[in-house]
Amino acid sequence: MRYTRAALALVLVGGWFPMAHSDEGMWLLNDPPRQLLKERHQFDLTDPWLKNAMLASVRLNSGGSGGFVSPDGLFVTNHHVAADSLQKLSAAGRDLLRDGFYADARDKELKCPDQEINVLQDIADVTKEVNAAVKPEMTAAEAFAARRAVMGRIEKESLDKTGLRSDVVTLYNGGLYHLYRYKKYTDVRLVFAPEKQIASFGGDVDNFEYPRMNLDVTFFRAYENGQPAKTPHFLKWSQVGPQSGELVFVTGHPGTTQRLETLARLKHRRDELLPYTLYRLRTLEAALKQYGEQSPECARQAATDLHSVANARKAFSGQLQGLLDPNIMEQKQAAERDLLLGAARAAEPKGRSAFDDAMNALAKVEAVQAKLRGFEKAHALVETGHAFFSPLFGIARHCVRMGDELPKKSADRLREYRDSNLESLKYQLFSPAPLYPELERAKLTASLTFLAENLGGEHDLVKLALAGKNPAARAEELTAGTKLFAPAERKRLVEGGAQAVAESKDPLIQLARAIDAEARKLRARYENEVEEPERQAYAALAAVRFMTYGSTVAPDATFTLRLAFGTVQGYEVGGEKLNFHTTFGEAFEKSAKLGGAEPFDLPKRWLDGKDKLDLKTPFNFVSTADTIGGNSGSPVLNRAGELVGINFDRNRHGLVRNFVYTDVQARHIAVHSKAVLEALRKLYPAAPLVKELVRQ
Amino acid sequence: MRYTRAALALVLVGGWFPMAHSDEGMWLLNDPPRQLLKERHQFDLTDPWLKNAMLASVRLNSGGSGGFVSPDGLFVTNHHVAADSLQKLSAAGRDLLRDGFYADARDKELKCPDQEINVLQDIADVTKEVNAAVKPEMTAAEAFAARRAVMGRIEKESLDKTGLRSDVVTLYNGGLYHLYRYKKYTDVRLVFAPEKQIASFGGDVDNFEYPRMNLDVTFFRAYENGQPAKTPHFLKWSQVGPQSGELVFVTGHPGTTQRLETLARLKHRRDELLPYTLYRLRTLEAALKQYGEQSPECARQAATDLHSVANARKAFSGQLQGLLDPNIMEQKQAAERDLLLGAARAAEPKGRSAFDDAMNALAKVEAVQAKLRGFEKAHALVETGHAFFSPLFGIARHCVRMGDELPKKSADRLREYRDSNLESLKYQLFSPAPLYPELERAKLTASLTFLAENLGGEHDLVKLALAGKNPAARAEELTAGTKLFAPAERKRLVEGGAQAVAESKDPLIQLARAIDAEARKLRARYENEVEEPERQAYAALAAVRFMTYGSTVAPDATFTLRLAFGTVQGYEVGGEKLNFHTTFGEAFEKSAKLGGAEPFDLPKRWLDGKDKLDLKTPFNFVSTADTIGGNSGSPVLNRAGELVGINFDRNRHGLVRNFVYTDVQARHIAVHSKAVLEALRKLYPAAPLVKELVRQ
Repeated sequence: MRYTRAALALVLVGGWFPMAHSDEGMWLLNDPPRQLLKERHQFDLTDPWLKNAMLASVRLNSGGSGGFVSPDGLFVTNHHVAADSLQKLSAAGRDLLRDGFYADARDKELKCPDQEINVLQDIADVTKEVNAAVKPEMTAAEAFAARRAVMGRIEKESLDKTGLRSDVVTLYNGGLYHLYRYKKYTDVRLVFAPEKQIASFGGDVDNFEYPRMNLDVTFFRAYENGQPAKTPHFLKWSQVGPQSGELVFVTGHPGTTQRLETLARLKHRRDELLPYTLYRLRTLEAALKQYGEQSPECARQAATDLHSVANARKAFSGQLQGLLDPNIMEQKQAAERDLLLGAARAAEPKGRSAFDDAMNALAKVEAVQAKLRGFEKAHALVETGHAFFSPLFGIARHCVRMGDELPKKSADRLREYRDSNLESLKYQLFSPAPLYPELERAKLTASLTFLAENLGGEHDLVKLALAGKNPAARAEELTAGTKLFAPAERKRLVEGGAQAVAESKDPLIQLARAIDAEARKLRARYENEVEEPERQAYAALAAVRFMTYGSTVAPDATFTLRLAFGTVQGYEVGGEKLNFHTTFGEAFEKSAKLGGAEPFDLPKRWLDGKDKLDLKTPFNFVSTADTIGGNSGSPVLNRAGELVGINFDRNRHGLVRNFVYTDVQARHIAVHSKAVLEALRKLYPAAPLVKELVRQ
Repeated sequence: MRYTRAALALVLVGGWFPMAHSDEGMWLLNDPPRQLLKERHQFDLTDPWLKNAMLASVRLNSGGSGGFVSPDGLFVTNHHVAADSLQKLSAAGRDLLRDGFYADARDKELKCPDQEINVLQDIADVTKEVNAAVKPEMTAAEAFAARRAVMGRIEKESLDKTGLRSDVVTLYNGGLYHLYRYKKYTDVRLVFAPEKQIASFGGDVDNFEYPRMNLDVTFFRAYENGQPAKTPHFLKWSQVGPQSGELVFVTGHPGTTQRLETLARLKHRRDELLPYTLYRLRTLEAALKQYGEQSPECARQAATDLHSVANARKAFSGQLQGLLDPNIMEQKQAAERDLLLGAARAAEPKGRSAFDDAMNALAKVEAVQAKLRGFEKAHALVETGHAFFSPLFGIARHCVRMGDELPKKSADRLREYRDSNLESLKYQLFSPAPLYPELERAKLTASLTFLAENLGGEHDLVKLALAGKNPAARAEELTAGTKLFAPAERKRLVEGGAQAVAESKDPLIQLARAIDAEARKLRARYENEVEEPERQAYAALAAVRFMTYGSTVAPDATFTLRLAFGTVQGYEVGGEKLNFHTTFGEAFEKSAKLGGAEPFDLPKRWLDGKDKLDLKTPFNFVSTADTIGGNSGSPVLNRAGELVGINFDRNRHGLVRNFVYTDVQARHIAVHSKAVLEALRKLYPAAPLVKELVRQ
């Protein structure tokens, strides 16, 4: 039987085959690919190696990864991951995102207004406990509620017992449930950031492209009790960096992949979800660009939103090209057929029921897509909040919902309001980070317009949201009238509960209240008609997959810590061989060739300091390791567990990795550890930072 | 009864009322508003005044208006109207669009590769002849064909008789048919263009905004037989310009308005057509921006496409805000009710049948919208060509269709291939204007992706268009393989007819052939299920309107010559009074305030020459005259028929003028005639041009 499957695989192109036969896999830390690493790379993954990597890996809750690089809480991540904090630490006339920052003494390090980082401490399998709470006779709604309740209870108990942030994570779309416990730091201070020009040299043009020359790094320090955190588990900074052909590892927090999704779901993605998403992103991008073009200060205000939106637009565009590629869809179809074949050929009666289970599960997922079409946009617009593209709306909704939810038992609340999450939620909600009324107005105008464009002017939800005005006038009314810019007002409303909310005349609070019944209905439909049936179906598919392939397939990404491995190597495009690394010199050459025009302009510091630099210093490098969005800032480690790079991107060939792993041309891209040292030594007045990195 | 209607009008806000009670109206030159001008402005519109205005007004077939300003063929239009030609006259390293141009001698004037201008000579009413060809017993398809045939015949006879370009124009969406005869010039040469920085100072940010400081002018000269054309009818250039409160006229070619559309049609526009249009425009804008950001040369290549797309995006966004404004929809509803009331109250039996006719017509238009929803996107994508956003595709399609159509009788051909249009069509088709393969590839990638986003990956038309590739790979194949960049190849195919086309291995020709059957089917559906029924319904509504109001309502715009009039006056926004004109000084002030950042940077010539300028010179001014897109470049005249300005835009309050005229804040914006003279005299080495303008 193995032969048959292997033979089938041979007739198909690329890396679709669900048994890892390459460097594929974002592996669970509690189920690492020891065997594979031994077979493919003659590497013995030891427990101490793994433990150090885990405890030195950082998750930034603004969305990204990082790694401790000194015993005193210093960690590195990407500049584009740090952008959120850099922006929030900036103001008119003081643009840290654009100009960079360096604190040459601890007391000059700048506390971020709302950055939270998490460091994974351990993982426990709670699948049985979660599944035991869901009885076969339950309706989808009952099952959903029961599962939510048991997950909430497990988290609460863990939090009470350990004091650690405790999250139950759904793996394999419902195949497994693991409890993740994190040490949490909320006092995070900025140490060093370079200028944006060099951090993202080439800007949107070169995003998801290689060759690349980006110093996409920023250093923060975690604090505890007002002192630098003690982080005995950290990554030694390699002064050598990686060589071609070398085995490397990436530890980080890949956000989401869809490799185990069924063909029906992927078609839905291709024909419904991705077009809607791109329509939305291009709408927001146009609005943000227009806002930014009004003046340099407007451009500053819109910079991080614009980057996120443009980055997402490019990533989703690549995904859509992937799903519109008949080769890829054929691979997915073959994989599905193969799973069915595998199940059917298992010994009776296991095979028969596995085959039926898989068939039923596939049909169930397909049926869900048909239902979804009827309310997916309304759900995304009103419950997910695409109609209200402003943190102000999120704030208003939390105030409204906390009034209703907090009086309930933790297990019965909407999941984001469970006790174990409240501290982190409030930390974000009461953040003093600045918001700009005119920017929020522009974003609300665009997104309210987008709402009307999608649902039509006669739709009840549109009428409810617009309240007798056109989108532009309504956005003006909302931003001019709200007091939610002030954290104190948010606190007052949360502390005052449902009554304070009900009495509030704030137009944003009133909007969030007015649509809440409908939004909750849409959410319930989504939970009961989509999430729960899909979870059950995917759990069945996962069981068949385990039976057929064992655990040789890693679960889809879930923004939790994973270990990937890969080989450092260049690749070929259109006959041109691309080296595995670029150099400082190439940045200067490219900029000169393009007349130094934005986004290929270099910082003055770099132009002035060019002669001081060794232009042959490796700048960025690529490997075949399996990464995705969320891995930004991930440490890249060598066999010795030293940091040889900081992952910051993947190339355009890697954009299809949401659906299929391929290593023909697809690569992730990292900043070379030597580049950071050379730049810090020669261009920046950052001697103490260099000393901290290399003292070990 | 007049009283009743007037009383009704009083309870409603704004300018909805279909009888002109303001400066509303884009009037037909053969039915000018003499009475109104006398009553409202004590102006006697004489035949000689009108004749001179008509014969001095120019239509640029690239989309815009202009006016002769010397007896030697010199005419003025907007820089943004000229942009198409400026771009086509440019090349890598020679950017006339950005840097401007001046020919200080006739033999240095640059011939545009494909600019055609038309000058209206006379108008004849052919309504009876057209309507006589359509019998009541005909099906929609028969009626459509009969109408097309009779229009083609009238045009052909007129062309043969007069040698003039002859177009039958459908007015009031089918209420009237007029034959327009034009003198045509295809030898058009560039005389003067300023730098883009000052022509569109403020760029997209200030587009559709006021106050404005733009030198949005360009001068061309029409030639005949290699000599400057004799244009005895021209507009004298005013050295004074307009005063506040002064009556002015705008002669030009407004493109399209929708003021007489029914409420059902406007709702369709709001909920279907405009969202689709904005989705499309934002998609193209994102693609063009990304292309341009790659390098300064890429930016140059994409500049005109980007401007058109951004301009359209802003205009349509304003339209959507207008239709989402409940006040405006209420006005439209009231207008419809009023028309029915008017019909009902007419004397029996005329009133009864008019009322029924109007009710039936409204129902018919509503029914059309419901049908349209089923195939509108497919029609727009495949027949209108939104799926193939490249002139290359248009070229390929013409080659393919001319092979099929030209052997037929002129009257039976698709309308664009009628004999009377062939010369102009070939002039465009064989244009030597440069096309850039990489730009066309980027545009095709974006638009083919947009096709798939709209119809889904399984749709037959998508499969046909993509031919087993994803959009990016398909676009690469099409642009790499086509020979249609060469005008000679286009000529070869057109001359070789259907056989040459059938034998062609050109991938774009093969694409155009492959989808032609489906495209023609969609076109036929559109003609028979939308155009013809709507034309009949609107003809009925027009008849009721004539009966009720007489000809006090101008027809919707049709990109044909119209006369508008208005009052020069400032307005108030948010308590701030805006003067009726701006000054040169304000441009320098605004630029300085924004640190000279793009798009508020000024040309070096202006910065260096600032001291030479009288900074109090009026720069742009506004009036209440009724304009729309297509009016760009329109001469603004005073009572004496002198040119006092060149219209180039309207403010954002004017964006709803597609649907309703309002003069509370809505204004069109023009370059002041003095500004042009002052700039030419002080900053540009253009003495001969000044002399030609003011010698009279």
